[in-house]
Amino acid sequence: MFNPEMSWAKRHLLDIQSLTKSEILTVLDTASVFKQVGQRAIKKVPALRGKTVVNLFVEPSTRTRVSFELAAQRLTADIVNFTTEASSFKKGETLKDTVRNLEALTADIIIIRHQSAGAAHFLSRFTKASVINAGDGAHSHPTQALLDLYTMREHKGDLKGKQVTILGDILFSRVARSSIWGLRKLGAQITLCGPPTLVPKSLESMGCRVTYDMQEALAQADIVSLLRIQHERQQQSMFPSLGEYSKFFGLNKERLKWVRPDALIMHPGPINRGVEIDSDIADSERSVILEQVTNGLAIRMAVLFLVNGGQHPQDLPACDLSVEA
Amino acid sequence: MFNPEMSWAKRHLLDIQSLTKSEILTVLDTASVFKQVGQRAIKKVPALRGKTVVNLFVEPSTRTRVSFELAAQRLTADIVNFTTEASSFKKGETLKDTVRNLEALTADIIIIRHQSAGAAHFLSRFTKASVINAGDGAHSHPTQALLDLYTMREHKGDLKGKQVTILGDILFSRVARSSIWGLRKLGAQITLCGPPTLVPKSLESMGCRVTYDMQEALAQADIVSLLRIQHERQQQSMFPSLGEYSKFFGLNKERLKWVRPDALIMHPGPINRGVEIDSDIADSERSVILEQVTNGLAIRMAVLFLVNGGQHPQDLPACDLSVEA
Amino acid sequence: MFNPEMSWAKRHLLDIQSLTKSEILTVLDTASVFKQVGQRAIKKVPALRGKTVVNLFVEPSTRTRVSFELAAQRLTADIVNFTTEASSFKKGETLKDTVRNLEALTADIIIIRHQSAGAAHFLSRFTKASVINAGDGAHSHPTQALLDLYTMREHKGDLKGKQVTILGDILFSRVARSSIWGLRKLGAQITLCGPPTLVPKSLESMGCRVTYDMQEALAQADIVSLLRIQHERQQQSMFPSLGEYSKFFGLNKERLKWVRPDALIMHPGPINRGVEIDSDIADSERSVILEQVTNGLAIRMAVLFLVNGGQHPQDLPACDLSVEA
Repeated sequence: MFNPEMSWAKRHLLDIQSLTKSEILTVLDTASVFKQVGQRAIKKVPALRGKTVVNLFVEPSTRTRVSFELAAQRLTADIVNFTTEASSFKKGETLKDTVRNLEALTADIIIIRHQSAGAAHFLSRFTKASVINAGDGAHSHPTQALLDLYTMREHKGDLKGKQVTILGDILFSRVARSSIWGLRKLGAQITLCGPPTLVPKSLESMGCRVTYDMQEALAQADIVSLLRIQHERQQQSMFPSLGEYSKFFGLNKERLKWVRPDALIMHPGPINRGVEIDSDIADSERSVILEQVTNGLAIRMAVLFLVNGGQHPQDLPACDLSVEA
Repeated sequence: MFNPEMSWAKRHLLDIQSLTKSEILTVLDTASVFKQVGQRAIKKVPALRGKTVVNLFVEPSTRTRVSFELAAQRLTADIVNFTTEASSFKKGETLKDTVRNLEALTADIIIIRHQSAGAAHFLSRFTKASVINAGDGAHSHPTQALLDLYTMREHKGDLKGKQVTILGDILFSRVARSSIWGLRKLGAQITLCGPPTLVPKSLESMGCRVTYDMQEALAQADIVSLLRIQHERQQQSMFPSLGEYSKFFGLNKERLKWVRPDALIMHPGPINRGVEIDSDIADSERSVILEQVTNGLAIRMAVLFLVNGGQHPQDLPACDLSVEA
Repeated sequence: MFNPEMSWAKRHLLDIQSLTKSEILTVLDTASVFKQVGQRAIKKVPALRGKTVVNLFVEPSTRTRVSFELAAQRLTADIVNFTTEASSFKKGETLKDTVRNLEALTADIIIIRHQSAGAAHFLSRFTKASVINAGDGAHSHPTQALLDLYTMREHKGDLKGKQVTILGDILFSRVARSSIWGLRKLGAQITLCGPPTLVPKSLESMGCRVTYDMQEALAQADIVSLLRIQHERQQQSMFPSLGEYSKFFGLNKERLKWVRPDALIMHPGPINRGVEIDSDIADSERSVILEQVTNGLAIRMAVLFLVNGGQHPQDLPACDLSVEA
């Protein structure tokens, strides 16, 4: 599967929309090499040995942090966690100052998660380190989109012309936004569905079909991608209640009949069991939710590798025991 | 001391009661090899190189977490800390989902600490990773029990027929419960003593003698094992006050006269100085409290090594500097 | 620059005042070797391989913690973070017990940050581990002072007779106190300036000139070192307001005219932009604030290396990829 004509010259990964189709495919191809590393007895390659990676998480996220941390460790990088809510920021230091400090500590790669859209772009404009966006407000979450594309391609091959239906809280979702950009670059057909407050007609401007008819949305889908319902939205009256949401848009046994038997069921996690998806569907053979997690680690290894200037991942030596003997 | 006929085929360490005597001895023998690693200039072996260990601590415990973290590092594993109180759980994800996610990140070993009895067993029923119980509610804390057995054996040899007196909050103590199981498997004679609210007669069903007479409890002991008094209990009226407890059951200079001069004084830590034990006794030559901590690291290295399928620890190469030169 | 006649026999780094001039120069010379490591493609040497370093931070400080953590990783040590506010201490265990436990886990080096002056000295009196003071109350912060001296010497050469002006909250600053000791040992002339509540005349007893005239304080300075204004002080009526402070003692464009063009502008960070220093000065070519951060990492590597008994850092092999291939 590995394509020798890799195409990656970027120093940062900030979003999906600025990637070319060829760059996206390079990340996916590179990830497929690193996915195999995760299946070895010794899950480690020395690609980033002696490099310094910082997890700068201003918005907490244990799952994403752990995925990046493991990715960095498997590339033999040094990694430190820098969660700032409780420390320097409360003393009045700016995000810019924090990042300049990390750069002064000769950080090679800064992984930033931040509640403000544009944070990663902002940093990339002044730092010499590579910046990886691990989620910035409602804007972008490119590694999540890339792992979704990877999972879809692994099961369905070339995504050109494939029907992808995305369900749920699309308006506020950086995951949805990033996935839509990525899917369009690879030529997929996208249908969006959910409550009108969360899936306004205006999203059609992103090149998607919008429908409020679940059956219609599900009928032709090769891939059904559910989004997490954010509990916070409920207080903002975006929809009446989780129960209401589940009643009209949750994927349950009845509605599953509308889905083609060979369609993939996806969800970025963490899932709200019984809200956007019933437990038995989430845990069924048709769901690839956990594969997405596995692929996320491979994607993050690939991104760390590429922004650091890596090439030809298939030629990396293994970290084996013999050299220590 | 190392026994070439090792006996360990388990993928998990969930409790003490399901271990055979031979399995317990295998852990202790393996730990004795790893204890020597801790005395080398380079305290590291490559046994778990490229393996992924996750510290999944739902109940906080810095001491136990650090002990496991160092154990994993000394085996050259990659380790990440995943403390969940503040993250995914508050978003409604279940423990099962969290563990499946860690498994999807190809975690090899999950160390779980949880306030609910049975959490480790529960996980082991569905995960492909090895599960190590680092304390589950009032149920079990097997590595603590194993380090206690290790320390006792190191000082007193074969524990068959040895008199072990356990003092304090036994009813609610996972440490006590685990130790009792382990001691009985190795043939020790156990006496329990403390306030009747914390040491009910019903504990005799575990094969122990229960007495409320401190002098009698201490007189024949080869080993005196004190338990930490949990401050929380006081609010639940299990005993009148810490002062009262100390007055009637604390090990002080006077009561120490009842103890044989060669008896070991043990405590799992952290100690309440002046409550269950007087400071000068805790810090005396007769106390092995800090040896227990050292042995805990060796036991945890042994358990990580064994659940990962390790054999013949004495043949492990050293991680020395020369290969890096 | 490296001096083959190194002079270091201490097991701890507790403060600056107990170091000889020769010891200070040894740290600076060693740091200059490690600074080069930070500029390599593979920023790592195996000097502390298999050694255990513990970051014992009782007072939170992400920046200092990360700097020490990276320093330890670049020396290939194993490092664990032990922040205790939330754990053992609330259960009543003493600092002494915590450190004895870390020692029992065969920690080689304990880095302690604590809100109480004297904490590091206290620990060093009973532990077999090496102790590094990472800030204790208003007492000392020796690695900060050493990185300041390093930065000054790198730019200005031998500090004997150099004019150093320190501005701001000197009375309560462990950084200022440590720097003054270090500067005097290296023969610099020190002028202190700031509001009388924060810079009392009594500081002259430390061998410094005290003046309340900014122009006079700045006029002859080879080096201007600003201190962070602690917001907390404001509530204690040490000065009327941040605005007032800035008006009378902030380094702005007007006052910069009083500073010699070749003078260094320093600040330990994190800076309060617009309070003790204007943003455009902090970010100008004349400021070495970020160099101080880079040098801090090199100083911390040097200190870890030296207290561990290291010698001849220039002879350390590189951690390169070839041995893993």
